[in-house]
Amino acid sequence: MNETVVMIGAGRVATHLAQALREHAGLRLVQVYSRTAEHARALAERSDGAAWTTSAEAVRTDADVYVFSLSDDALADVARRVPANDGLWLHTAGSVPMAVFRGRARRYGVLYPLQTFSRERSVDFRRVPCFVEGCTAEVTDEVRTLAERLSDEVHELSSVDRAYLHLAAVFACNFTNHMYALADGIVRARGLDGSVLRPLIDETAAKIHRLTPREAQTGPALRNDRAVMDRQAAMIADPDVRRLYEDISRGIYAEQLKS
Amino acid sequence: MNETVVMIGAGRVATHLAQALREHAGLRLVQVYSRTAEHARALAERSDGAAWTTSAEAVRTDADVYVFSLSDDALADVARRVPANDGLWLHTAGSVPMAVFRGRARRYGVLYPLQTFSRERSVDFRRVPCFVEGCTAEVTDEVRTLAERLSDEVHELSSVDRAYLHLAAVFACNFTNHMYALADGIVRARGLDGSVLRPLIDETAAKIHRLTPREAQTGPALRNDRAVMDRQAAMIADPDVRRLYEDISRGIYAEQLKS
Repeated sequence: MNETVVMIGAGRVATHLAQALREHAGLRLVQVYSRTAEHARALAERSDGAAWTTSAEAVRTDADVYVFSLSDDALADVARRVPANDGLWLHTAGSVPMAVFRGRARRYGVLYPLQTFSRERSVDFRRVPCFVEGCTAEVTDEVRTLAERLSDEVHELSSVDRAYLHLAAVFACNFTNHMYALADGIVRARGLDGSVLRPLIDETAAKIHRLTPREAQTGPALRNDRAVMDRQAAMIADPDVRRLYEDISRGIYAEQLKS
Repeated sequence: MNETVVMIGAGRVATHLAQALREHAGLRLVQVYSRTAEHARALAERSDGAAWTTSAEAVRTDADVYVFSLSDDALADVARRVPANDGLWLHTAGSVPMAVFRGRARRYGVLYPLQTFSRERSVDFRRVPCFVEGCTAEVTDEVRTLAERLSDEVHELSSVDRAYLHLAAVFACNFTNHMYALADGIVRARGLDGSVLRPLIDETAAKIHRLTPREAQTGPALRNDRAVMDRQAAMIADPDVRRLYEDISRGIYAEQLKS
């Protein structure tokens, strides 16, 4: 008699989480909702025997757990349309307060996995830090217990703190990746392959396992080496990227001056 | 009868390179110059028997190889003060043209290791991409042969292209590390440990081994999700960091629109 789960959403987070819920926590996926039929069907087919629907109103009411993995915009709307029931409702969004479920479910909370998920790469969920919250102390314990079946690193976190954590994740992941994209564009324009940057990128990430980012910093901006910075800025054709170069360089120097 | 090398400079690059020259290429370090006595002595003491000096004019003239690992500012000045000789003169700087040695040495070139070096971490030099240049085709071959004794990945690169590669490295390393620093500051201000971000940082770096940075991108800026971006920008107290948030977000969206 496995516990049952309904996935509301069928994107990257939903797909990775559904797999972890099955493989690590032993939950049985019984239904998938997505407004896009092919996404709902694709996730259902990965989980033998799960039904799927594109109608939030048709979500069944007898499951143990409902995981909402939707874009922030869609979440409030879909949560209003799923029929009320006695299951545990969870969402996985960094920036949406737990209160999005208030008045819709009796037992609700958040399970926020702090990781970037791709269709192309599998992720070891046991090593994904998960941040949990529940509408009562008892529900918080339930969510924590479920999260601990998925991951070795579970923290309780309020909705407000989670919003800041999501902001930090945007810097650590999306903005970092944009720095990779700009670097990649520069080397490709000189006929080099972007792969020449990989050892540097890997070592930059590895360094902060032992040093704080501030201790790990190097380069012309840290030394406030104006001659190099002026020459480098002048090499950047795109005025927006040039301004970014100046602003980030100034930020690096300012960071160093902090106590 | 080992070849001999003099290190001009005793910083992080010089220290890592001196070790690789000894261990991988079998060169014998015979002298270290640094304008700071304790740095010169420290590197000399790691390499038993090497002499050290704080006077560029006292650099010996009978070595086979002279490696200049100095700040860009110091390089031209010190290259003028080291006595002319018949050795192979190399510098390791990304942004300084090979021509800094013109008129000072007969055989000269560049060996630029594309990596970030820390005092605290050892680096496997065989996996450091090295970019070489020489003042003649014959010297280029000499520099390449030497570099291939250190590293499995050696490329020839002109001074102009190397300057762009260095610019790319600033984005891929220093600017990336600044994104880590900003993320770290945000989570610490909420009482969380910066280490919660490490799996995300590691996966963000790992992803681009299989995807281009553009393919790997995710997040609110990519989706042009104004609601999330406006909320996140409003959470950033520092106006310079807030502007960075807006500018990088705009850059991510613009990058996506490119062909």
